[in-house]
Amino acid sequence: MPSVAVVGASGYAGALAARLLWRHPGFELVAVTSRSDAGRRLDDLYPHHRVPLVLDVFDVDELGAVDAAVVAYPHGAAAEAVAELHERGIRVVDLSADFRLRDVATYAEWYRPHPAPALIEEAVYGLPELYRDRIRDAAIVANPGCFPTAAILALAPLARHLDDVVIDAKTGVSGAGRAATDKTHFVTVDENVTPYGVGRHRHMPEIDQELAALGARDVVAAFTAHLLPLDQGELVSCYVTLTEDVDAPALFEDRYAGEPFVELVARPPGVRDVRETNFCRIHVHPDERTGKVLVFAALDNLWKGTASQAVQNLNLMFGLDEDAGIA
Amino acid sequence: MPSVAVVGASGYAGALAARLLWRHPGFELVAVTSRSDAGRRLDDLYPHHRVPLVLDVFDVDELGAVDAAVVAYPHGAAAEAVAELHERGIRVVDLSADFRLRDVATYAEWYRPHPAPALIEEAVYGLPELYRDRIRDAAIVANPGCFPTAAILALAPLARHLDDVVIDAKTGVSGAGRAATDKTHFVTVDENVTPYGVGRHRHMPEIDQELAALGARDVVAAFTAHLLPLDQGELVSCYVTLTEDVDAPALFEDRYAGEPFVELVARPPGVRDVRETNFCRIHVHPDERTGKVLVFAALDNLWKGTASQAVQNLNLMFGLDEDAGIA
Amino acid sequence: MPSVAVVGASGYAGALAARLLWRHPGFELVAVTSRSDAGRRLDDLYPHHRVPLVLDVFDVDELGAVDAAVVAYPHGAAAEAVAELHERGIRVVDLSADFRLRDVATYAEWYRPHPAPALIEEAVYGLPELYRDRIRDAAIVANPGCFPTAAILALAPLARHLDDVVIDAKTGVSGAGRAATDKTHFVTVDENVTPYGVGRHRHMPEIDQELAALGARDVVAAFTAHLLPLDQGELVSCYVTLTEDVDAPALFEDRYAGEPFVELVARPPGVRDVRETNFCRIHVHPDERTGKVLVFAALDNLWKGTASQAVQNLNLMFGLDEDAGIA
Amino acid sequence: MPSVAVVGASGYAGALAARLLWRHPGFELVAVTSRSDAGRRLDDLYPHHRVPLVLDVFDVDELGAVDAAVVAYPHGAAAEAVAELHERGIRVVDLSADFRLRDVATYAEWYRPHPAPALIEEAVYGLPELYRDRIRDAAIVANPGCFPTAAILALAPLARHLDDVVIDAKTGVSGAGRAATDKTHFVTVDENVTPYGVGRHRHMPEIDQELAALGARDVVAAFTAHLLPLDQGELVSCYVTLTEDVDAPALFEDRYAGEPFVELVARPPGVRDVRETNFCRIHVHPDERTGKVLVFAALDNLWKGTASQAVQNLNLMFGLDEDAGIA
Repeated sequence: MPSVAVVGASGYAGALAARLLWRHPGFELVAVTSRSDAGRRLDDLYPHHRVPLVLDVFDVDELGAVDAAVVAYPHGAAAEAVAELHERGIRVVDLSADFRLRDVATYAEWYRPHPAPALIEEAVYGLPELYRDRIRDAAIVANPGCFPTAAILALAPLARHLDDVVIDAKTGVSGAGRAATDKTHFVTVDENVTPYGVGRHRHMPEIDQELAALGARDVVAAFTAHLLPLDQGELVSCYVTLTEDVDAPALFEDRYAGEPFVELVARPPGVRDVRETNFCRIHVHPDERTGKVLVFAALDNLWKGTASQAVQNLNLMFGLDEDAGIA
Repeated sequence: MPSVAVVGASGYAGALAARLLWRHPGFELVAVTSRSDAGRRLDDLYPHHRVPLVLDVFDVDELGAVDAAVVAYPHGAAAEAVAELHERGIRVVDLSADFRLRDVATYAEWYRPHPAPALIEEAVYGLPELYRDRIRDAAIVANPGCFPTAAILALAPLARHLDDVVIDAKTGVSGAGRAATDKTHFVTVDENVTPYGVGRHRHMPEIDQELAALGARDVVAAFTAHLLPLDQGELVSCYVTLTEDVDAPALFEDRYAGEPFVELVARPPGVRDVRETNFCRIHVHPDERTGKVLVFAALDNLWKGTASQAVQNLNLMFGLDEDAGIA
Repeated sequence: MPSVAVVGASGYAGALAARLLWRHPGFELVAVTSRSDAGRRLDDLYPHHRVPLVLDVFDVDELGAVDAAVVAYPHGAAAEAVAELHERGIRVVDLSADFRLRDVATYAEWYRPHPAPALIEEAVYGLPELYRDRIRDAAIVANPGCFPTAAILALAPLARHLDDVVIDAKTGVSGAGRAATDKTHFVTVDENVTPYGVGRHRHMPEIDQELAALGARDVVAAFTAHLLPLDQGELVSCYVTLTEDVDAPALFEDRYAGEPFVELVARPPGVRDVRETNFCRIHVHPDERTGKVLVFAALDNLWKGTASQAVQNLNLMFGLDEDAGIA
Repeated sequence: MPSVAVVGASGYAGALAARLLWRHPGFELVAVTSRSDAGRRLDDLYPHHRVPLVLDVFDVDELGAVDAAVVAYPHGAAAEAVAELHERGIRVVDLSADFRLRDVATYAEWYRPHPAPALIEEAVYGLPELYRDRIRDAAIVANPGCFPTAAILALAPLARHLDDVVIDAKTGVSGAGRAATDKTHFVTVDENVTPYGVGRHRHMPEIDQELAALGARDVVAAFTAHLLPLDQGELVSCYVTLTEDVDAPALFEDRYAGEPFVELVARPPGVRDVRETNFCRIHVHPDERTGKVLVFAALDNLWKGTASQAVQNLNLMFGLDEDAGIA
């Protein structure tokens, strides 16, 4: 059974990845690390995850003969850890943004100079619905951002026909991470909804990159994220003008036939429908009044948006059933 | 001092109107009525509103010499009550949709045959920022819907230049009213966000009507409402393609200079910023990446979206300071 | 593999029981029934539970050779279904109150005349931590109420020494069930906390019965339930005056050594610690200022408080590992 | 018109005090100060409070001829500011704990050595329902803690008859203040309820002091606070054993007859009933089963629990109507 470590397991996403791998029938979780909480047990930090492992300081040499690692570090720090792991032949799923953008200049524009540019070519964008085959053999999988996961799944079947795209995204607070700030204070979020990253959100180039890779021509999607008073859950509401008349629902049916974790539904989904699952629920509405196609995609930002998608990727990388441990 | 009654004061909007009028320096609240809760005291139903009046059954003859009434009935029933009140010379602010649409056929298409079509011409659309002068003399004021209030305020300065409009709207549960249903059950709403009325929402023709009145040509706005886990508050996020290059922020500054209840702000507003106020906060963002103009407007759906806007209209109708009782 | 049905699977507790049994390694879930939603698929009602079975009308003859049933009906109706199932030799875990009280007069006082008094003797109170051995052989298991589960686990080790007991209980809204009422309306619950059942709550006689069975003499516990703005989760805060000086923490350590689902913790538990688990977390605080012992017990009212405890009971009844399917 | 300053207006309580005084018919709010946010406008920090004043650094000499000040500092820092203000003859309502405990040794035991012990004698405990007359002439009013306000109002009528007292208290997150910490992070609080300060909470000696002053003999109340997922609101549930048989409801009726801000109600109150008001709602239940008296008291922790009670005190100190600005 392949052994796996979670590097950076004290954040929300890393901790959930650890939980899923701890119970996984096909992997052995052998180590969890944390820069801030080393020495504490993970089930002390997250009792309901029930992972009775002690958090260690990350030291690639001490990880030993681990087969794979999930890296849950902030961007920049992630690339450095990925490089160390990669050098020792350990296959990596990186939850950060460091290997998602294939163009190093774009990365530099939105983040900072890339700490390990040579590895970008090694990385596969970890959206199984787009890159399943390449993920199987990848040394480094760049797990997508939560918004891009929802947005790309919502738009992929229409990509070749896109003229104008508006993506209005809503997310729970866990997406903002575990850091205690004014923005994550209960009293700030409760009974509130606030747009953020207006005009400039780091998930934008990721969405545009993948839409282009799917055949969209010169599409720059308008995108706004909104913070909602809930912990987990994400909804993207897409308003699409097409270049030509197509049977949109049929395109979705075709594209997602047989996909294990994409569900097309007849009613607009709520995020509760997919809470704590790896599913993305999509509703397509050809809108007669406006001629647009409306697409709504719901997922759990910590699950399909991050940690369970990482496990889906690991399953592919190690030849397991794609839904092992996350069905 | 003009006397006023609230007809239908047991719902959220009517009750709040009663509270605001009970404390109003320029009106005397003399009666509150309810079909479902007659005989109960309003402060038994809504303790924090602190209105110690007993709810009566509505009987226009018993209201006596009241000068004005706020009608907070569902559509259809509202028109009948408005007709009775109007016949006796009582000036009315109607919170329902019955007199918002100026075209009787459009009303019939979205609701049902109009119960009092002859009165439609008497009614003024009660958005003070658009129709202040006509409201002063109106016999019947059709208080706008909560989404139209936010959306029209967000789009009015751009109306003559609109090419394509997407309005993504989010609201708290009080907007769904006091009826206990599956949709308003705590467990349904909590930790959830759900689109509703996709493709067909009764606020659509109201928005389109007013944009057209403002000079928009052939604009059918895409609009989706979303239900959020909060009680009061509403945000519309608008994504606008213009027909020509304009200085959008300047248009907003011009249009809303001197407006007492519209605030232009440099950061995207949260609904908490305007909680329990009559203010609408607007942020305009010319978006370089997409060429669109993004406009975010926040208000309290029960206040500026309904009840305090009704008081604003009453203030205008009776020559009081526009912000009396709602500053 | 034993086959099992869930009778009344459209409520919160029954649906969760169905979910747990659908994924259970040791049971085959062969039928789910509903009086109100027959004909619908359970995953249409509860998408995230992902149980793709169609709800049938309950007909004991059509259930066929099922080995066991979980009955999730309201009291009264439950007893009738239990009687029918029992007559056909089907072993039952009943989630209602119908077989919890061993004294038929007490039942009549708190509910109504018992519909099947002859069966009361057949039933075992389904708290494994108290009656594990008897549950193994039981034909009918009366699954405890959610508050009694928490309260009895919090007080059992001290039962022989109880002089005065106050139990202040807090629960999420799912405990009030799926019925849409004024009390479960989002706007009623949100930003609120309310005591209910003050002086008379049907869980009182259940708690007193079990404390007496554990050796408490003449103890009538003061108990108040409070409704909180959250969906799942329950906390009881117990303030205990003892008849004599004991080493309370040691009594807890002794009593719960080896218990798979009771955790003694050094800090007061939050209900999130046990969310969606079968665990009850208990913190014992001998209070020097007052001489009392304070005990806090947290559980998930739908899991250990109802549905996963039912599975724990089924595991015992059929000789499976006690934590099968709920670890 | 007396002029007033709020010292420390950037926290939740100080900001609300500023809002109430800004709109107060009998005071002129002339200054607001902040150590952390000097230079910002208060309506930038708290838009919905709508106080358009700039926060200054506190400098007693620059406050000039102000007649009164509300001090909203943490304990310790508060005493120093109070001393400076008092020296210049400015009357003070102090929201901190610094002048609540009349015994300097008790203060030292629960906090630290008192920074201004000589002033303790000058201070009056600012619960108008107990000390109305002394507050009128006080130079320093020690505004009560939020839990003590509710608990003392809930127990005062029974004080001479108390044998055993349990106070189970629940509060929203605003009571924890504006500091962003793990405990106030949205994801920590949401869908949770947690006891805190178990066995040792700084409001304990304050409650015991006032019960003793009311005639309670040797009563040490058991008290536990619980954090709930809501912003404002506080409920105390009291379980009282009396020394003798009394007509508890009659004692409450007698004690609170004519009290403008205490309401005795026939049903258990929810905190929404008193949201954003200065009222404390109390329900008394003589419990036949246990012989105890149960008392439930609800208030808004930021209003009657802190800021509006400070205004109530100011009204008394300056001879205004007690409910001026807070009715």
